[in-house]
Amino acid sequence: MQTFDKAALEAMNSRYRVNFINCLSGYKSLNLVGTINAQGQTNLAPFSSVIHLGADPALVGMICRPPSETEAGNNGSGRHTLDNLIATGWYTLNHVSAEMVESAHQCSARYPAGISEFDASGLTPEFSGECPAPFVAESRLRMAVHYREHHELLINGTTLIIGEIMSVTLPDDVLRESGYIDLDQAGTLSCTGLDSYHTGQRLLRLAYAKPDQAPRQIPEDS
Amino acid sequence: MQTFDKAALEAMNSRYRVNFINCLSGYKSLNLVGTINAQGQTNLAPFSSVIHLGADPALVGMICRPPSETEAGNNGSGRHTLDNLIATGWYTLNHVSAEMVESAHQCSARYPAGISEFDASGLTPEFSGECPAPFVAESRLRMAVHYREHHELLINGTTLIIGEIMSVTLPDDVLRESGYIDLDQAGTLSCTGLDSYHTGQRLLRLAYAKPDQAPRQIPEDS
Repeated sequence: MQTFDKAALEAMNSRYRVNFINCLSGYKSLNLVGTINAQGQTNLAPFSSVIHLGADPALVGMICRPPSETEAGNNGSGRHTLDNLIATGWYTLNHVSAEMVESAHQCSARYPAGISEFDASGLTPEFSGECPAPFVAESRLRMAVHYREHHELLINGTTLIIGEIMSVTLPDDVLRESGYIDLDQAGTLSCTGLDSYHTGQRLLRLAYAKPDQAPRQIPEDS
Repeated sequence: MQTFDKAALEAMNSRYRVNFINCLSGYKSLNLVGTINAQGQTNLAPFSSVIHLGADPALVGMICRPPSETEAGNNGSGRHTLDNLIATGWYTLNHVSAEMVESAHQCSARYPAGISEFDASGLTPEFSGECPAPFVAESRLRMAVHYREHHELLINGTTLIIGEIMSVTLPDDVLRESGYIDLDQAGTLSCTGLDSYHTGQRLLRLAYAKPDQAPRQIPEDS
């Protein structure tokens, strides 16, 4: 084992430090966020910061980096995303699977205004229901999200965006009896750091923990 | 494929809905959060909401559920955690690997005040450096975090806690030349929903995306 103290962390060169710190939170969710502006221009950006906030109402959060941020990956069109979802009130979240990971990563490139990441990456926009924002047709698990509010985090210029999940589309064979969704089977990827993509493999599922009971496994398909 | 619209989501029974919605954000990071109160009582709680906020300063966020929250897992001692880290200014984040996953899950049980989850789970508190909060000795990747600020999210009563990473301890063989940390090799687990734990397996790493270049892989060990 080795330990990096505050001085050692500060002594890292900028690029090394960005890679290092980005890995520390652990595995990250991976979603393509689809939006559209008032002129009908679509936008698609990978986000690795989508988190569950609550089930009732069904709220998700995500972090949008400041426009000056120069970190690679997962932030290419962050501000377009923020502007669009505030303007229209809607965005989509689309899980990324292996077949589409290179196209998803390419959406983090800094394309000029006026070029849609859908066109640049070859991913297919799909429109459905009341949500004006585009879904990614190639994605196996996708959601329409209604923008609710955002919070500027002045500590580092990032923005927490909160939205409510309004619809969910997923494959027939990944939903279990308890409501659990088998993301391994759905092919959903996670990511670590700035550039690494991972499949998941279930180790076990554990029953609701109680003080007077030892941990016990529950069936994988429950 | 099947689609659940807003009416279908609202018609789900509460338990089913909690399982379902909890899976939608994707794979979640898994950290044990160690704290101590002014009387020296330690606390340890699993959190699945730790996210990277920025590399300079090195900031991480995590969501603490309201005290009335009845969701299983990952919230058992959330409020003790919040109270303690505000009182002392410190907490630790400890990645969870397969050997300790059952003990980590057990820390989500609602133990009476006065019982430390370290004692209940058999995990070992370790104290090091200026951080008064306990590390988990069994954890292969652990951090001391200095509390910076918190934001009450009135939309659903959760709290966003923001802290600055002050030290990092990790195995010698997981750190790569670029600063990338190989979490697959570190044995770090992720989780999905309320009860499922996963290992990660790298699919590929991709170079910084540029508009005029096709996606290209980079060596796994870079």
